[in-house]
Amino acid sequence: MKSQGAPDPKQEILEAAIRLFARKGFSATGVREIAQQAKVNIAMISYYFGSKRGILEAALDIFFQRYLEVAEQSLAGDDPPEQKMRRFIRSIVIFSRNNKDLVRIAFTELPFDMPEIAAFKAERGKKIAALFQNKLLSAMEGRLPRPIRLEIVGPAFTGMLVSHFLLRPVLEGIFSTSFDEEFYERYAEEIADLLFYGVLGTRHEFHDEGDNKLKKDKLSE
Amino acid sequence: MKSQGAPDPKQEILEAAIRLFARKGFSATGVREIAQQAKVNIAMISYYFGSKRGILEAALDIFFQRYLEVAEQSLAGDDPPEQKMRRFIRSIVIFSRNNKDLVRIAFTELPFDMPEIAAFKAERGKKIAALFQNKLLSAMEGRLPRPIRLEIVGPAFTGMLVSHFLLRPVLEGIFSTSFDEEFYERYAEEIADLLFYGVLGTRHEFHDEGDNKLKKDKLSE
Repeated sequence: MKSQGAPDPKQEILEAAIRLFARKGFSATGVREIAQQAKVNIAMISYYFGSKRGILEAALDIFFQRYLEVAEQSLAGDDPPEQKMRRFIRSIVIFSRNNKDLVRIAFTELPFDMPEIAAFKAERGKKIAALFQNKLLSAMEGRLPRPIRLEIVGPAFTGMLVSHFLLRPVLEGIFSTSFDEEFYERYAEEIADLLFYGVLGTRHEFHDEGDNKLKKDKLSE
Repeated sequence: MKSQGAPDPKQEILEAAIRLFARKGFSATGVREIAQQAKVNIAMISYYFGSKRGILEAALDIFFQRYLEVAEQSLAGDDPPEQKMRRFIRSIVIFSRNNKDLVRIAFTELPFDMPEIAAFKAERGKKIAALFQNKLLSAMEGRLPRPIRLEIVGPAFTGMLVSHFLLRPVLEGIFSTSFDEEFYERYAEEIADLLFYGVLGTRHEFHDEGDNKLKKDKLSE
């Protein structure tokens, strides 16, 4: 997200707003403050984004575009579904670590008082849901031990994956773990294991070759 | 949360603030507005809560107390761990449905700019973490197919359970499901299944009688 070379006012506004929204919240952040932090004239904000809500939508767009890109890239190809999902989880963990503020905004700027933001998010969420339905769940039909309802598992999985990043300041006060490189590598794998097998489950039998290979690789580590 | 009979100004302030914090966010809500909505003199807020932050802490206290109570009640006794957790999940789903605003505040009023709120939450989170460690995980040691790290599974499970309630306005725009009584009954069971067995896992072998009984009951439904 850091811009290089000559300052680009549009980019500066966006970056300043993302920092402020993540720390103070959308409602408590003023356009004047964004302009000050971005070192631009306040008129630039109207020029580039129309309004404060326009900046929030631009920030959410970056988040959803990236999430969708990662999903498209991870779910493409002929690898077994489990491998695809591990790839997706690893990429989202990397993205979330590098874009903490954006992730905070996407999940804490909830549209309880902004129906137009709910609609904006739902429109993008639909594309992601359709992708998981068509590229992943449909391909696994008949191979699942229980039926999977995307409207339950989708948000649950999203919450499972991102809550660490949202709750991190609190988690630092609860656990003595250091959230370092090693932690995040384990994190992605453990979230994947939790999604696939839960805390009690063992592997389902009718997996294909690819999955078995993956498991053996893991066991021999 | 609704008070009955003669208005209790402290309760009125708390309820008005919870409604406002959940809709506008803590930072964007003014004490004057809280006083107006609660139909009390603004001085009452200082008298009962000290400050706006005092009201937020009181609201968070209700949330954490209830969460801890539910955890204590659900995890007590000699039932198998799986039954205890299903009880916990069902109770939290009921609590979250009845206290939507409180759940929103607890998870969206994140302390990125309020270290004292992070500390306040961590103190309460520690008690909940210790309860799950001592009453549940310790009892399951050696019986789990993989080691469980509370610092990963704890927040992941919390996110899994509450994200529906946080994302609901967006989910309503994505899925055509009606979020009715029947949905929430299924919801609690499917979240429990996801936590125990994931999307691919099947039951682990070395469960005790109680668990097998539970499974048979479920299958014969």
